[in-house]
Amino acid sequence: MTQLEAAKKGIVTDAMMAVAKVEGLDAEAVRAAVASGEAVIPLNIHHANARAVGVGRMFTTKINANLGRSVTHSGKGDELEKLQVALDAGADFVMDLSVGSSEDEIAGIRQGMLDASPAPLGTVPIYETISLLGDIPKMDPKFLIGVIRRQAEQGVDFMTLHAGLLLRHIPLAMKRKMGIVSRGGAIMAEWMMENNAENPLYTHWDEVMDILAEHDVTVSLGDGLRPGCLADASDSAQFGELDVLGELVDRCRERGVQVMVEGPGHVPFNQIQMNMERQQKVCKKAPFYVLGPVVTDIAPGYDHIVSAIGATAAATYGASLLCYVTPAEHLGLPDAEEVHQGCIAYKIAAHAGDVARGLPGARDRDDAMSDARAAFDWDRQFEICLDPKRAKERWLRTRAFTDEAHGDDYCSMCGKQFCAVRTSRRIRELASRRPT
Amino acid sequence: MTQLEAAKKGIVTDAMMAVAKVEGLDAEAVRAAVASGEAVIPLNIHHANARAVGVGRMFTTKINANLGRSVTHSGKGDELEKLQVALDAGADFVMDLSVGSSEDEIAGIRQGMLDASPAPLGTVPIYETISLLGDIPKMDPKFLIGVIRRQAEQGVDFMTLHAGLLLRHIPLAMKRKMGIVSRGGAIMAEWMMENNAENPLYTHWDEVMDILAEHDVTVSLGDGLRPGCLADASDSAQFGELDVLGELVDRCRERGVQVMVEGPGHVPFNQIQMNMERQQKVCKKAPFYVLGPVVTDIAPGYDHIVSAIGATAAATYGASLLCYVTPAEHLGLPDAEEVHQGCIAYKIAAHAGDVARGLPGARDRDDAMSDARAAFDWDRQFEICLDPKRAKERWLRTRAFTDEAHGDDYCSMCGKQFCAVRTSRRIRELASRRPT
Repeated sequence: MTQLEAAKKGIVTDAMMAVAKVEGLDAEAVRAAVASGEAVIPLNIHHANARAVGVGRMFTTKINANLGRSVTHSGKGDELEKLQVALDAGADFVMDLSVGSSEDEIAGIRQGMLDASPAPLGTVPIYETISLLGDIPKMDPKFLIGVIRRQAEQGVDFMTLHAGLLLRHIPLAMKRKMGIVSRGGAIMAEWMMENNAENPLYTHWDEVMDILAEHDVTVSLGDGLRPGCLADASDSAQFGELDVLGELVDRCRERGVQVMVEGPGHVPFNQIQMNMERQQKVCKKAPFYVLGPVVTDIAPGYDHIVSAIGATAAATYGASLLCYVTPAEHLGLPDAEEVHQGCIAYKIAAHAGDVARGLPGARDRDDAMSDARAAFDWDRQFEICLDPKRAKERWLRTRAFTDEAHGDDYCSMCGKQFCAVRTSRRIRELASRRPT
Repeated sequence: MTQLEAAKKGIVTDAMMAVAKVEGLDAEAVRAAVASGEAVIPLNIHHANARAVGVGRMFTTKINANLGRSVTHSGKGDELEKLQVALDAGADFVMDLSVGSSEDEIAGIRQGMLDASPAPLGTVPIYETISLLGDIPKMDPKFLIGVIRRQAEQGVDFMTLHAGLLLRHIPLAMKRKMGIVSRGGAIMAEWMMENNAENPLYTHWDEVMDILAEHDVTVSLGDGLRPGCLADASDSAQFGELDVLGELVDRCRERGVQVMVEGPGHVPFNQIQMNMERQQKVCKKAPFYVLGPVVTDIAPGYDHIVSAIGATAAATYGASLLCYVTPAEHLGLPDAEEVHQGCIAYKIAAHAGDVARGLPGARDRDDAMSDARAAFDWDRQFEICLDPKRAKERWLRTRAFTDEAHGDDYCSMCGKQFCAVRTSRRIRELASRRPT
């Protein structure tokens, strides 16, 4: 029984209770959210060591880190190191996007990550499929479905499936500056054009559903037509596919399969709210899993910053899960340091969004930080902040210049004489002595 | 004659023509914007080598980099190096916030920066004042005015003056978690409380105006009561001071002194639009010069990212000039690398905001980038992007793994087989062969 099937029957599962505890909610509220499809708990019945993580607007916004080896770049060891870096930085989900030359190799990397990751793990099965086949046009839909089955049996918690990109959308996408920039979307579209046939995931959807339901794999409906630059954002290709994703959400829910929906991409800052609201409407509040969005195309090397801007707006207006973008985006695959940078940027976006949308309790951590700052309690500041190790290292660099004998009762930035917080204390003293 | 006085008389100055050329506007439109006070061109008549830079909503959003030595951290050479880093990264304005132990020392650093900087330069005169006096309560207002005069004569293009923080606001600020976090604001407030007297800049405003008008120094009305944490944002202290800043805007404009207004600080993402709109209304569209805003308090070490999020929203909704925040914020003064990181984060925010608010032509650079990406024209991408050197270095790191003999006609991120842009080309070919 999937979490969704259980929830519909009124059953509160262990996973729902675990999510309720973490989120500070009532378990019955979590069950109701899962039953309605407004929340999902991606948790394959075979992923024994994974924790239950809730995705939905009633929970804190979550972040995902994409990992995985490319053909030439890294091996299993590198990816396990990056996995640990991502987990340490607070990634709630990870995706293994590894490609490779044999089934054993790819499955081996994935097994290593499943074993090592308490965070639920996702994949994009078309990547393994094309890795093994080599040639897109020759792909037999049965082969793709076989890959999905094996990954489901192995314990993958959620899968990106580009099932909503249909033949009729392709001419719309060809009018764009950047065409199709989703790897999975481009593969599906090429296959469809070469074979003059409809999207095989769409035509075989019931079969796919049966497999996913059996292992409680959550579908992440891929946005194969996400815009790849500002100029292509919010166009008829993107929204044409979105409408199909809305239909597929219904079909997942009817079959008892948990479903979330992926979203853009490259979107100007002013179009993000509209995009979030439109997705929530078309997809009946299915959790929105958003990549970025990237709000300008001109800053390769800094797209973690560019997209954290968009991600904050996305979290504020409708996203439930943010897929990180690293500084390597558009230039290469991230190394461990770039994974770290991407995760922290997205923890910032998720949290700033939660504060902005008024999620109960979200600001408590900020308030605790402010109290620690006002009290010059540096240890407490490092305890509370997102990256204690680096914040402390940076502070110690400053402190080396100052006179430690005078204590730490001033802000290291401005020095003792110019410390506003220190001066504020003096003003407070003076104010307290005044007649009211 | 100040730019404002000239504009009011219908005179189009060289500075206005220079701004018009850079912004792609008609010189008369620039004159009209300056005349109305909706635009300023901070340009001291003595700063011979400085360029004219327009600040206002009809222009691209500008960024400022704060520099300057602290008592113990750095000397003149370091600051000149940082100045060059800031200019190279695209800073439109710089501020010298140096403190020191003698008038000659501080003036010497400032002169070095004025000589080296084609970007207009700003200061906060109260810093030098307190550096020289040592003791806040003993400050004679005449001494502060003398510092302002000497700096104006030296060529400072704009000055932050915390003239709007009045005695009646101080009890409001003392109710906060963080009190007063503006250095200048805290100094003024302590002086006022110790001497039981009104803000000396406010009481001597006409005298200050005369000095600034003589040298065409632009006033940047300091927000001494900017919130220092999310909990303190948008409170009665902040908005009480803002109302006084609105009055002072009128007094500046009447006297022919160019004026912009500084703004918060730490503000939750969802309150930024309201803050921008309120300032524009209260201050009669005087250009808004915004620090950050920082949208969460929990990420010391990453406040350039945290605040670039807020700065993008600020630029979208009402700011004209963004004061950068560096990764060192809350932990120390920025080194050269942190100055670079802060500048790039703010170039991103300014540009993303310009695109979002639909500034004519703003998206052209993004579109050119997208065209270069679709064409696999890597050299052109590096030419267009915000940080060509580092983007190229990062790309070369990836390219070292790939087979150069096969050319660069695929995206380095995914490799040749999985390059969506490459696949898109193939789809386009297939689509073009189809009957329509």
